[in-house]
Formats: sequence, C-alpha cells, structure tokens
Amino acid sequence: MNHMEPLTPGNGRVKDARKLSRRSVRSERRLFLADGPKAVQGALGVDGCVVEVFATPAALEQYHHLLAGAGTVTLVDDRALATLSDSVTPAGVVAVCRHLDLPLDQVVRPTSRLLVICADVRDPGNAGTVIRTADAVGADGVVLAGSSVDVYNPKTVRASVGSLFHLPVALCPEPGAAVAAARQHGITVLAADAAGEVDLFDADLSGPSAWLFGNEAWGLPPELAESADARVAIPIHGRAESLNLSTAAAVCLYASAREQRASADPRHG
Amino acid sequence: MNHMEPLTPGNGRVKDARKLSRRSVRSERRLFLADGPKAVQGALGVDGCVVEVFATPAALEQYHHLLAGAGTVTLVDDRALATLSDSVTPAGVVAVCRHLDLPLDQVVRPTSRLLVICADVRDPGNAGTVIRTADAVGADGVVLAGSSVDVYNPKTVRASVGSLFHLPVALCPEPGAAVAAARQHGITVLAADAAGEVDLFDADLSGPSAWLFGNEAWGLPPELAESADARVAIPIHGRAESLNLSTAAAVCLYASAREQRASADPRHG
Repeated sequence: MNHMEPLTPGNGRVKDARKLSRRSVRSERRLFLADGPKAVQGALGVDGCVVEVFATPAALEQYHHLLAGAGTVTLVDDRALATLSDSVTPAGVVAVCRHLDLPLDQVVRPTSRLLVICADVRDPGNAGTVIRTADAVGADGVVLAGSSVDVYNPKTVRASVGSLFHLPVALCPEPGAAVAAARQHGITVLAADAAGEVDLFDADLSGPSAWLFGNEAWGLPPELAESADARVAIPIHGRAESLNLSTAAAVCLYASAREQRASADPRHG
Repeated sequence: MNHMEPLTPGNGRVKDARKLSRRSVRSERRLFLADGPKAVQGALGVDGCVVEVFATPAALEQYHHLLAGAGTVTLVDDRALATLSDSVTPAGVVAVCRHLDLPLDQVVRPTSRLLVICADVRDPGNAGTVIRTADAVGADGVVLAGSSVDVYNPKTVRASVGSLFHLPVALCPEPGAAVAAARQHGITVLAADAAGEVDLFDADLSGPSAWLFGNEAWGLPPELAESADARVAIPIHGRAESLNLSTAAAVCLYASAREQRASADPRHG
C-alpha cells in the first residue's frame, strides 16, 4: 500500500483513468472501470484483470480485507474518486480493468448447455441484469451481439453485480454469426418473440439451448427471428403489452434451467 | 382543443403542475404526473383519472388520435414540457392524474388468486417493473407496503408502462397488515427469500397465493418472512449471489401462474 497524499482530480493518472468513461477510449485501450467493492472484488478474482485500484482513505480502511489482494492501491481524495465513479453515491473504490470478452468460439462451444445471445440490447441496465441472471441460472455464457450496448459501460458493469467477472462473455457484431455458431453445434436457438408460435410453457426446453433476445423497443429483426429453431412467446395473461427485457430473459432462462434439470434428474420437474 | 399560444415554463399552471415532482406535494394533493403517450393513454382509460393534459404542438399533432379522448389539451412549449417530464427525451405529452390506489381490502380480496406484496422496495424502476410483470402474469393486484418507494414516482410510473392504470394497487404502511389480510382469506403467503427452506420449483404454487418481496439490499425483515406460510428460494446455480428484485419477482410470478393454470387445465403443466 502507498502512504502518499491522496491524488486530486487534476492529477494526470486520475485524469487518464477518467477518460475510460468514454466508450471509444475503452475500446482503444481495452480497459474499463469497475466501480464499488463488489465489482472490484469480482475483478480481483480474475487473474491479470486489474491494472490499478483507486480508493479513498476511508474506503481503504473499510475494505482493507478486499483490497489486501490488490497489491498497490492508489489513494485519491473523495472528489477525484467521484470523477471516476458513475454512481450517485460512490463507494470509494474503483479499479481499472482489462477487457474480459472472449472470442465467440470460446463462449458458444460444442458442450454449451445454456447460452444467451442479446441482439441490439440497448439499455445498459438490462444488459448487466441479463448477465447477472444468466450467471444465477448457471448458463455457460452470454453473447452481446449487433448494436448492443457496450458491456463495459459503467451501468452495465454495475447492474451485473460482479457476474461480468464470473461468466464468459463474447462480443459479436453480427447476431446471425452467433446464431449460426450455436446451430452448428446442435444447440437449439430459441428466439424470445412476443408474437412467437410456441408458448414458453409448451416448448421443449430440455436440450442444449441458446436464447436469443432482441431490442427493448422493437424486438428481433424478422430475418433473425426466422433464423432461430423456434420463436417462443411468454404468455401474457393480463393487460400489459409486454415484459421488460431483463424480466422476460429471467422467465425464459429459469424455464430452461428447470426443464434441463428435470430431464437430468426425474425427481424434479 | 385550445388554440392559444403554448404556455412557457414560467406560466402559473405549468409551475403548479411541476410541483408534483415532489412526493410531499403528490401526497397532499393526491395527484401525480403521467409522462409520455403510453402512460397518458393508460390514464385516459381510467374514468375520472385525468385532471389535465399538457402537450407540445408537435406531440398534439403526433398523438391526436390518443389526445382526442382527452377533451381539453393545454399546449406548452418544449421547455415547459421538459420541466414536467422526468425523461431525458420527453415525448411531449404529460397528464396530471388523480391517485389510483385502493384500500387494502379492495386489493386483497377473498377471491384473489395471485397477489404481490412489496415490503420496503426502494428502487422506483423495480417497483414499476414489478407492477408491469404482475399485470402481464394476470395477477389480481399489488400492495406496496412499508417504506416502499412512492408508486407515483415518475420513474415508477414510467417503468410500469401503463400497468399502474390497469392493475389494482394498494398502499399499506404496515407490511404485516397486508400479510395478515391475505392469510385471513386463506391465501397462501410465500416469502421470496434467498435463504428460504423451499426451492421455488419444489413449492406447491397451485392455490391462491400472495408473493411477498423485500428490500433490494437487505431482503425481508426476519419476523415478516416468518409470518409467511413458506419462505421460497429461487435456485441459484451459478456464481451470482442473488437476482435483481424485479427479475426474481418475474420468475416467482410466472412459476405461480404456470402452476395455477396447469392445475386448472391438466393439459398444461
């Protein structure tokens, strides 16, 4: 640990790290910011992920067990920390991390049982929540495809609550390539589609599956939905027109996990 | 429709409506703001709900079919509309609405099949998303209990995507009173609890049920969880510690709806 004076917002290293709030800078440097103790803990759990940790003196004291694993911690004052944090009430600790995304073929694999492909998901909170849910349900990985939000957006990192550091994630400009890769491995691609021909609770979900989710406002492009093995609708019984994307994903993923486990262990189901 | 000059931000009626961004003013006047065409459409569908509609000239043209049902529309300029909207990109139409919440005994009823009780849910987006999901799943109503966020918070209204206007909602300062009311009617109260003794997919969900959800960070107070008929855990198969509240609610509610419909119609399930 260093014992120098906390750095101020004008310090060159702080200013340099702050530039990672811009997607273009994140992409160019292949770095991003993990904000708060949960994210920093997740990042420290991945070998070689953390480049630098910034903490306020108060946070260093509060999280000293966690930060003991960080090696060097750079002390910053509250104002400098706030410039690195996207949070309204910064927790006092931010890590500069290396990008974690893997090539598509390391996420969509012959042995994958349950995958998520997000096509053009734009809300950073939704993307992070889908990653968190995919982790909770025991999925093998998530592909953020097409014009989806940057997975290293601070809101996405925060909404994933550490799961970005647990779960294999691939980025794929062309959603069709992710669908094709899954189908090539015999993984059934299920397009979540409010106008789908199959009811979620009538669908056969027991085999290896990749769920395909579209944009929050306009759903999946028709040709992409058609490229899936089936288009599956969550039944809407009331007067709501639709579900929020991340809640829809949770309902689909848990339906799949339940079926897969029931077929693996006939006592459940 | 009026054909006067659009009102500016300094106009008295605009300033008066703007005060509804404060919870204390909303509570005192029993009014709130519905922002955007979907919310305004929902509000116009409820007899006597809408007090006044503000729209920009462009929105009046774009949404004239919708606003034809509004009777009088007060034209405001873009800047005035923006002061009434919580949205980063206001859609140009905002309605002043009367509060919609019902007494507890009109939401928790002897005939209720599926209810939601939120205790101390603090995030406005989560509360609105839970209302939207409860509507989608065909639930009979939602109780926002304890220190839960104001259901008339603009972010809650927006996240409900119109469902606040479809679904009976009660406010109940004491969560225990809502639990007691449900149990008195023979409705099984299921506490969503990560440490619960029953796995969601092993639970008997076929009868009339009220789901009880707690705070995003600290869950349910132990004595409240104990007052439920069962404490039910969503299985976590991966490394995520928990689920987002609104996604957890969606998984629980759809599990219940599925079981209830399967027991009503043995062809499904």
